[in-house]
Amino acid sequence: MRAAVVRDKRLIVADVPTPEPGPGEVLVKTLACGICGSDLHALKHADRFAESYRRADGTRIFDFSRDIVMGHEFCAEIVDHGPKTDRRLRVGARVCSMPVLLRGEGRQTIGYSNDHPGGYAEYMRLTESLLLEVPNGLATEQAALTEPMAVGLHAVNKARLQPGDSALVIGCGPVGLAVIAALRLRGVRPVVAADFSPRRRELAVALGADAVVDPSPALPAERWRAATVVFECVGVPGVIDQIMEHAPKGARLVIVGVCMEPDTIHPLRGISKELSLQFVLGYDGEEFAETLRHIAEGVIPTEPLITGKVGVEGVAGAFTDLASPDRHAKILVEPWR
Amino acid sequence: MRAAVVRDKRLIVADVPTPEPGPGEVLVKTLACGICGSDLHALKHADRFAESYRRADGTRIFDFSRDIVMGHEFCAEIVDHGPKTDRRLRVGARVCSMPVLLRGEGRQTIGYSNDHPGGYAEYMRLTESLLLEVPNGLATEQAALTEPMAVGLHAVNKARLQPGDSALVIGCGPVGLAVIAALRLRGVRPVVAADFSPRRRELAVALGADAVVDPSPALPAERWRAATVVFECVGVPGVIDQIMEHAPKGARLVIVGVCMEPDTIHPLRGISKELSLQFVLGYDGEEFAETLRHIAEGVIPTEPLITGKVGVEGVAGAFTDLASPDRHAKILVEPWR
Repeated sequence: MRAAVVRDKRLIVADVPTPEPGPGEVLVKTLACGICGSDLHALKHADRFAESYRRADGTRIFDFSRDIVMGHEFCAEIVDHGPKTDRRLRVGARVCSMPVLLRGEGRQTIGYSNDHPGGYAEYMRLTESLLLEVPNGLATEQAALTEPMAVGLHAVNKARLQPGDSALVIGCGPVGLAVIAALRLRGVRPVVAADFSPRRRELAVALGADAVVDPSPALPAERWRAATVVFECVGVPGVIDQIMEHAPKGARLVIVGVCMEPDTIHPLRGISKELSLQFVLGYDGEEFAETLRHIAEGVIPTEPLITGKVGVEGVAGAFTDLASPDRHAKILVEPWR
Repeated sequence: MRAAVVRDKRLIVADVPTPEPGPGEVLVKTLACGICGSDLHALKHADRFAESYRRADGTRIFDFSRDIVMGHEFCAEIVDHGPKTDRRLRVGARVCSMPVLLRGEGRQTIGYSNDHPGGYAEYMRLTESLLLEVPNGLATEQAALTEPMAVGLHAVNKARLQPGDSALVIGCGPVGLAVIAALRLRGVRPVVAADFSPRRRELAVALGADAVVDPSPALPAERWRAATVVFECVGVPGVIDQIMEHAPKGARLVIVGVCMEPDTIHPLRGISKELSLQFVLGYDGEEFAETLRHIAEGVIPTEPLITGKVGVEGVAGAFTDLASPDRHAKILVEPWR
């Protein structure tokens, strides 16, 4: 099958073996798959990424010396049922799934794996029991945003929200936008969002931010003072410490951005204000299903997020384009395009 | 009055003016005052300490170019009542107090102030409404440990304890020991404590640790795996990141040690395991009063902690001695000695 493949730490288009579904698995056609900032990170910091995840989380073991087909934000269509499946959903059904395979030997990742191709290819294998049918009438491209939007819902669920909370979201890339949508869903008001990019600030409003602010040259002090919970959705060194410097007493910081590099903090800033930092990652199955439901009901808006579509041959270019925050939020790969 | 004074960032013995109690304040004789690790820190990192606290907490404004009498862990005896006091406690009563003055212009710190001498001097002024009478039969030197032990109780209160928690305490100086006592008080089992010093490990057991471990050359993996909540009670750069590296998935880290310097962390360690870091400082009035009560009832043991006593002329030497963890835990200053 045709795929955008990471080979020698570069993205190329190549033919790779079509996966075979194992017991309890289905073969699916990838209809659409979002490009995630983590994929850009993974490629840029390949060795550190692989090593860090290997140490932290046994499920993501991959080796950049062998081919990897990335892509973990997908909507797909069932093509065939493997052995020992109960065929709950028919061939042709559109499905979403968390990007993992439940196998006898343990949980395996789809999209950061040498063995299980992700959504930047024509086909994937998925675990039947994890499949969620896409509700009738929901566009495929919106269903494909379930995964990134679930990240926001999970982050907000981990924020220990209290009545009266007001939130500040630092960074309005896809992760920040997902957090904004989830905060809105959970009834937090106001949600203030900060990003250098005017386009991203527009998107923040579209996703539900009550106010947006340009943090250049500095976020106004009153914005900091009002925030009881601050979401770090940037993921570059220095941002956590900056938030620690300005956040008010007792603030809860939720670290959603994935900073791959070592970072410097001033612990005294945290101590003197009794800050808390909650690092978060991913979501659970319930959060994932809840997100798809909310997208279908239109309570989590997704349409404004999709700013481009490419075939597999466009993936490398899209990775480059995504570095320009003023042009793109989410680019979808449509391998059959 | 005679006092150990910080002058030109050095500790000397000098005569300084005896404080006058203002409205709502009492004059007290200092009976005993513990030397706190923060005082050693403050002297070592004088400028950074002053600046950091000025930025973070308006109540601790002090200037190392003028005299400072430190000492904030005290037990004292009422000598005189100032104006507008209700004389609830008689002259001669032994009292503890949080080291703050409640004044019209706001909360003022005792012991990190150019205006309000702390317990390394013969006299202090205290706010009458904050006074807690030392229960009959409780030794003065044990009552003087209320302040440091309250730090431990507060840290444990901020740990969001859950049934089934098991705790790992990194560092068994006075702060770590206070945390151990509070964990024991709250019923957490097991409490495992780690320190390089055999003497401090002995003290950890005396304060209630179920097991102690020498972290040299490394803390055994099974100790890390079992810990759901980890208390950082060291306060030197590198320790937070080390805990982040080894703590198990979902662990809560409580940062009690006061690291005055910038510190490096690997955010990915926190992200991949969804760690939380809660920075803590101090205690509130209820926690302070509860601590004194527990000390009086013997539920928080304090006797093993007191390893030395000096007069004001011995303070400078005691600061040096406290750098040797195998000799000392808490040295008390008795200004009338």
